[in-house]
Amino acid sequence: MDAENRLSYPGSRRTYIQGKLFPDVKVPMREVILSDTLLPDGTAHQNAPVAIYDCSGPWGDDSFHGNVEEGLPRLRESWILERGDVIRQTEGDASYLVAKSDTPVTQRHYAQQGIITPEMEYVAIRENLGREEAFKTVYDRYPNEKSRPQDAQQILDELTYMPRPSELEAQSGFGPKSMVARDQLTHQHVPEKRSGSRMPAYFTPEFVRDEIASGRALIPANINHPECEPMVIGRNFLVKINANIGNSALGSSIEEEVEKLRWAIHWGSDTVMDLSTGKNIHATREWILRNSPVPIGTVPIYQALEKVRGKVADLTWDIFRDTLIEQARQGVDYVTIHAALLKRFVNHTANRMTGIVSRGGSIMAQWSMIHGQENFLYDHWNEICEILAAYDIGISIGDGLRPGSIADANDFAQLAELEIQGDLTKRAWDRGVQVMNEGPGHVPMHLIAENMTKQLEWCLEAPFYTLGPLVTDIAPGYDHITGAIGGAMIAQRGCSMLCYVTQKEHLGLPDKQDVREAVVTYKLSAHAADLAKGHPSAQLRDNALAQARFEFRWEDQFNLALDPQKARSFHDLTLPHANAKKAHFCSMCGPDFCAMRLSQDIKKMGKEDTLS
Amino acid sequence: MDAENRLSYPGSRRTYIQGKLFPDVKVPMREVILSDTLLPDGTAHQNAPVAIYDCSGPWGDDSFHGNVEEGLPRLRESWILERGDVIRQTEGDASYLVAKSDTPVTQRHYAQQGIITPEMEYVAIRENLGREEAFKTVYDRYPNEKSRPQDAQQILDELTYMPRPSELEAQSGFGPKSMVARDQLTHQHVPEKRSGSRMPAYFTPEFVRDEIASGRALIPANINHPECEPMVIGRNFLVKINANIGNSALGSSIEEEVEKLRWAIHWGSDTVMDLSTGKNIHATREWILRNSPVPIGTVPIYQALEKVRGKVADLTWDIFRDTLIEQARQGVDYVTIHAALLKRFVNHTANRMTGIVSRGGSIMAQWSMIHGQENFLYDHWNEICEILAAYDIGISIGDGLRPGSIADANDFAQLAELEIQGDLTKRAWDRGVQVMNEGPGHVPMHLIAENMTKQLEWCLEAPFYTLGPLVTDIAPGYDHITGAIGGAMIAQRGCSMLCYVTQKEHLGLPDKQDVREAVVTYKLSAHAADLAKGHPSAQLRDNALAQARFEFRWEDQFNLALDPQKARSFHDLTLPHANAKKAHFCSMCGPDFCAMRLSQDIKKMGKEDTLS
Repeated sequence: MDAENRLSYPGSRRTYIQGKLFPDVKVPMREVILSDTLLPDGTAHQNAPVAIYDCSGPWGDDSFHGNVEEGLPRLRESWILERGDVIRQTEGDASYLVAKSDTPVTQRHYAQQGIITPEMEYVAIRENLGREEAFKTVYDRYPNEKSRPQDAQQILDELTYMPRPSELEAQSGFGPKSMVARDQLTHQHVPEKRSGSRMPAYFTPEFVRDEIASGRALIPANINHPECEPMVIGRNFLVKINANIGNSALGSSIEEEVEKLRWAIHWGSDTVMDLSTGKNIHATREWILRNSPVPIGTVPIYQALEKVRGKVADLTWDIFRDTLIEQARQGVDYVTIHAALLKRFVNHTANRMTGIVSRGGSIMAQWSMIHGQENFLYDHWNEICEILAAYDIGISIGDGLRPGSIADANDFAQLAELEIQGDLTKRAWDRGVQVMNEGPGHVPMHLIAENMTKQLEWCLEAPFYTLGPLVTDIAPGYDHITGAIGGAMIAQRGCSMLCYVTQKEHLGLPDKQDVREAVVTYKLSAHAADLAKGHPSAQLRDNALAQARFEFRWEDQFNLALDPQKARSFHDLTLPHANAKKAHFCSMCGPDFCAMRLSQDIKKMGKEDTLS
Repeated sequence: MDAENRLSYPGSRRTYIQGKLFPDVKVPMREVILSDTLLPDGTAHQNAPVAIYDCSGPWGDDSFHGNVEEGLPRLRESWILERGDVIRQTEGDASYLVAKSDTPVTQRHYAQQGIITPEMEYVAIRENLGREEAFKTVYDRYPNEKSRPQDAQQILDELTYMPRPSELEAQSGFGPKSMVARDQLTHQHVPEKRSGSRMPAYFTPEFVRDEIASGRALIPANINHPECEPMVIGRNFLVKINANIGNSALGSSIEEEVEKLRWAIHWGSDTVMDLSTGKNIHATREWILRNSPVPIGTVPIYQALEKVRGKVADLTWDIFRDTLIEQARQGVDYVTIHAALLKRFVNHTANRMTGIVSRGGSIMAQWSMIHGQENFLYDHWNEICEILAAYDIGISIGDGLRPGSIADANDFAQLAELEIQGDLTKRAWDRGVQVMNEGPGHVPMHLIAENMTKQLEWCLEAPFYTLGPLVTDIAPGYDHITGAIGGAMIAQRGCSMLCYVTQKEHLGLPDKQDVREAVVTYKLSAHAADLAKGHPSAQLRDNALAQARFEFRWEDQFNLALDPQKARSFHDLTLPHANAKKAHFCSMCGPDFCAMRLSQDIKKMGKEDTLS
């Protein structure tokens, strides 16, 4: 297993955008190269390539020839060391970095000091999705020097200008009772205000710093995971998705898990959680970390429980702390900790339809019941935060009492825990730790908004990271879809990251094709939310694909798709011949009935009218 | 191909609920038989069967032994004839019913006269989903005669009682800052008010009549399609879904189309549109109608165009009218007519990203441009309505200018046409015709609400019937999901029927497995909206499935699923042995780590605590 077993996208090339503040920041993008538009006069219009956010790291770069045994280049190592606030220590075979002093070595700490790090510039460039091109587009639209605005920033502000309905009515003069505002320059819809996002037209390193400092976003990047390409999670950025991997007692091997990692990031997973519960947890994690360009999350209580041979009663704070430190030194970027599940909330799950369905939650609830003591993760919160601050591990405060069914959604136990998640968020922030909050679960559509608004209010806009929510319980076998519906809706309202659910959820372990289906499904769900929230570059790809579709540029349509292979294979099933890729129709309507072609004819007729 | 090639659901039996007003009304339901819950004391609690809405007609009844050549029993024939307002006529080989006079023979006309038809009682029973059981449940909850309310209707009203947050706070005394209201009796969430639905706790024939009379709902049921089992489309009923079938020039045969019909209704399609454009349109439709227990819709302009060998310029009103009458006499239940696409709107599509993407729309636009005349469907609207009223064909006013891309959503052309759809709706209603309006298409999430609110306002709550909407353009190969996201959201806000989109959309022709995937996907999407809108029986199935899941009743979990075979096959992939169906864990976490089991242990510990 090495770089030569490369997963690649057709019609694409890897490019890098260099940082301006930090010249060794080089942000990878995948550019989809488009064919020309053939104009009626026989000339060709050259279509600009479309930049795609790329999670695949060096594995997606043809010029990279490393292998899994060696691991990835240590991209961030110099950035981390040059800050001068960490020291290298050795214990046994292992060597790791740790904070020199009690001062946090976190992106949050730097941001609050007003420091812009290379990581911040990296994610700013990444979020712009090749938006530099937009400047050029705007200039092209103002060929007349007199009418050309002086400042590019000013033009970009105009890109999100929202005309009032009355202005539009005045322009059109007649017609429907009201019109939707639409940006005339970018051909992109104006976002709705209610989404509450404060997304700028252009992401600057300073904007990123401010979001990190406020706690509205985090960059999970452990100082011991220098292979990690920085990415940001927050409501004012692109919606991110997470894929879970991990062996359980019943199946899978280390090699399979690393392969799953590469597979998940190829399809676009922004982070990966290693939820291993079986044997070789430590070794599996090591392989994953050394080969992962994306942040790796874990749930440390799983490994702690393995250490006491699965006996919940035997768990102790000391065992948990040692496990947390072990993972911190390996380079885990964020950890789920179920500290908000208080002992007194457990009784409130007794009359639930489906009790406690979070693994971590049920472990901690059981521990509390057995010992008659408060959740030790809650009691040791300050110590947990101090450990995380010394390695810059992001904390993902678990929702151990999330509903496991529609019936249990938004009940007392769930909301009570959410309130405590808010308290713990503030305490972690005070200790310099980057924070996000985990959320449900199973929620009917009309209760999704409440989850989001309460989380924003109680947790002070700390990023929300949800599993689903699944909007019905009646579709086992299709829960990637029930979750994608809820995921799109909650992301539209401000959820920052969606944890994927595969079609095997509730039924079995996902295989590679399930992972692919789930990642692509959550990518489309997240992207739908990006459109709705008005991410300034989101609609570029939709527009490019729609135009390719209208012009029967089939190859471009496939190549711009989230899953080009599947799109192409579906087309080939009914029209397999190579020249069908140039056909001005498709198999759905046949050559005599193509609406797209009829519509092009109408366009042509309209033009002839104007001439005659 | 006959009844013996039966498609069946495991663990289910067919039952019929008899009408009270019309004893020959017998509404089919599929009951899923559940196994017992084993209680800790060793006794068993018997779980009531769960009634499922069943679209499969006689094909889903084991005691039916007909075949495709004979067609289905003529269920509604006596109801139609007994109204005494139709006569049988013969033309060539064909014999058909038609209105005796100019008076409409439509469900709308009867409803407005205050008449409750067997069709209305049929759909009332159907919508209750075995809700008679709910009465019993309520009585069981009031064993004390004194505290038992006098009237069952009164109790059912209470089922939708919404406690105020302050009441709940008083009850709980402490805890989260606010709580979501939840119905304490049904364990079902209270719907949000904003959905605007006026769904009653119990559907009566009179309620159905009132909805039909007001135009908020329709029962598509041509007097020449007596095989059709009545169903209702309207925002105050269950959300319905439609599957498209139909041969195109490039593939498929009559036999395949009838098989697709049976397949689509087996998985739960509420109506089926025959969109054939190739040869044998008439014969294909005849086979489909005689074998369909669900309403069949068509787009008559497709056949009209075939009659002029695909030459748009040669289309005339006379050819269209004759085609419409031909289809009316065969028994088509609803027709899409693109009459709201006015000539002056066509220019407004010239600068679109994807022009006109509706086949019917592009035909009419092209015709208008060629002849310089207004759309003849608009000009002949009154005549069209008179034909439809004489057979009780529902009209589905087409949206020929629906957006074909995110970029074109909610633009001038689309909304201008919607406004005309509203005008035509009123005119059709005045002529006794049942009406719905077709809607987009491709719409980003934040613009979906506008589509729905404008449609409700401009078309006076006539049912909305949408294709998707697809919430992004970047996922060809996954457009059943992009459409299911938009579909769930627009249905939550009042859309009455969703037209499915298969994963082959934009790419190729769907095969059987694509149809199954798409139907199930739209069923879950529609059901998610039913939950959010607070359909009084919707959550029963979620609750039953969630309880089965919590109690490790695997077979019940599979059998209650929308796609039991898929759920079971996914489970069997990792745990194939028969005794794994009784295991108190699944392959996802393995035996040592099961959150569900840990949670049951907690429950047990809580009980022991109480005892000690």
